[in-house]
Amino acid sequence: MSAETQLEKERHEELLASFANQGFLVRLGARIVDLAVGRCLIELPFGPDVTQHHGFFHGGAVGAIADAAGGYAGMTVLADGLGALTLEYKINFVRPAAGKKIVADAQVLRAGRSVMLTRVDVYAEGQSRYLCAAMQQTIMRAQQ
Amino acid sequence: MSAETQLEKERHEELLASFANQGFLVRLGARIVDLAVGRCLIELPFGPDVTQHHGFFHGGAVGAIADAAGGYAGMTVLADGLGALTLEYKINFVRPAAGKKIVADAQVLRAGRSVMLTRVDVYAEGQSRYLCAAMQQTIMRAQQ
Amino acid sequence: MSAETQLEKERHEELLASFANQGFLVRLGARIVDLAVGRCLIELPFGPDVTQHHGFFHGGAVGAIADAAGGYAGMTVLADGLGALTLEYKINFVRPAAGKKIVADAQVLRAGRSVMLTRVDVYAEGQSRYLCAAMQQTIMRAQQ
Amino acid sequence: MSAETQLEKERHEELLASFANQGFLVRLGARIVDLAVGRCLIELPFGPDVTQHHGFFHGGAVGAIADAAGGYAGMTVLADGLGALTLEYKINFVRPAAGKKIVADAQVLRAGRSVMLTRVDVYAEGQSRYLCAAMQQTIMRAQQ
Repeated sequence: MSAETQLEKERHEELLASFANQGFLVRLGARIVDLAVGRCLIELPFGPDVTQHHGFFHGGAVGAIADAAGGYAGMTVLADGLGALTLEYKINFVRPAAGKKIVADAQVLRAGRSVMLTRVDVYAEGQSRYLCAAMQQTIMRAQQ
Repeated sequence: MSAETQLEKERHEELLASFANQGFLVRLGARIVDLAVGRCLIELPFGPDVTQHHGFFHGGAVGAIADAAGGYAGMTVLADGLGALTLEYKINFVRPAAGKKIVADAQVLRAGRSVMLTRVDVYAEGQSRYLCAAMQQTIMRAQQ
Repeated sequence: MSAETQLEKERHEELLASFANQGFLVRLGARIVDLAVGRCLIELPFGPDVTQHHGFFHGGAVGAIADAAGGYAGMTVLADGLGALTLEYKINFVRPAAGKKIVADAQVLRAGRSVMLTRVDVYAEGQSRYLCAAMQQTIMRAQQ
Repeated sequence: MSAETQLEKERHEELLASFANQGFLVRLGARIVDLAVGRCLIELPFGPDVTQHHGFFHGGAVGAIADAAGGYAGMTVLADGLGALTLEYKINFVRPAAGKKIVADAQVLRAGRSVMLTRVDVYAEGQSRYLCAAMQQTIMRAQQ
């Protein structure tokens, strides 16, 4: 990722406030760690509420933060007051996600008039950092 | 769905025990409500831990129970002691999920030697019952 | 599939005429064999132009008729003069497609205001008939 | 894309020979224009056999060369004599594909023991060059 275009302060705060209302994500422990025009990073620390039966991060948690990162990346290119609905996504799980946290890194590939396409890479971070999942997602402009 | 083939008691209990170890799903409140050969139903009651900012079920929760239902449907056609890993899935969100609960209804479409294909419909149930999401999922045989 | 709702004659002819303008599909040898409200069947006979290196139907040909069947199924629920654009689809190839022809059977799962969801099953037909691919597709209303 | 690792000459020729046996792709006019370890570019010139009713490249042709590019990218990381089967893919069409040709640019994201993940971007090239489609694909090692 090269130079990022900074997001306007007002929109930045509006999107953080929107995220704070997402009961599901907040209770999991997810938080936005970066927002720029066309990009969003969300991280989720490890803990008993986000695991599956082998002690890895659960695929449902991986999918949830990837979906959220794509949606918020999309919202960074929209005007104030506009939100985004996920129409659909597709996710590949490429390695078990182990470590202290997972980070979803989303970028807008194409912002059309009514529909946007994002790609999201999810990394597991601990002693090493590696790709654990990859998503391609379609979102739709909507009233927030 | 017509007549279902009942699952052997031992495998049934093994799969319920496996599900009980899924911290992420259990803490959300999800539970398996039906298991037959090639089929699994999982339901998730409404509550503050599973919502998004408009008070609907969060897409992350919808995706998580759909993925789980597909995986457990796949495991019903495997021998005792075998599990299933999600390679990938694709989910379409077709209506906001509102109501007392959501139910993911998964069926195995094709059980290959190493890879299986499932389809999962997720319904929202309250005063009415309607399709809120549809998934197509690839899972792989694995040691549990 | 239970009873189908017949398509109005005018719309039926309009859609067949639209299909006849699809150079790519026509030259492959694909043709619409059934159209009803919310449903479309397209078949493709076997031949040297549709094969891969083992002599099976090529995945590209399988994907193309599945995509087309979903799109035309979607158009059956739209008003005269309206068309449909494929936003995206996802296809699983579950068995090599061998036989005299393949048939894509598409149904509309949900017709929203601007976006529609279809599911398409592709069968190989020869001495036996079996599922060779399964698609889930998002299409968007558009001027034809 | 930074520096590429060149493919061994023998494998390079083996893969071009395999492609030459793909009746469907060859008759469309598709050809491999670059092969490196983990990467494949396939291009398709414009013509009446690859269009839809508005004169753009048909989605079926776009999907077919994207799928092929992903598959051959995957095969570049396999040993001689090994091939790859497409398990599934998902493709988003982001703009109508117009121009003199389309080019599918595929990269291997993750090469697992039995399954590989690729991403493919398809560009339309004429007076300008722009992204027209994006694919995420799962392929499986197989005997060629």
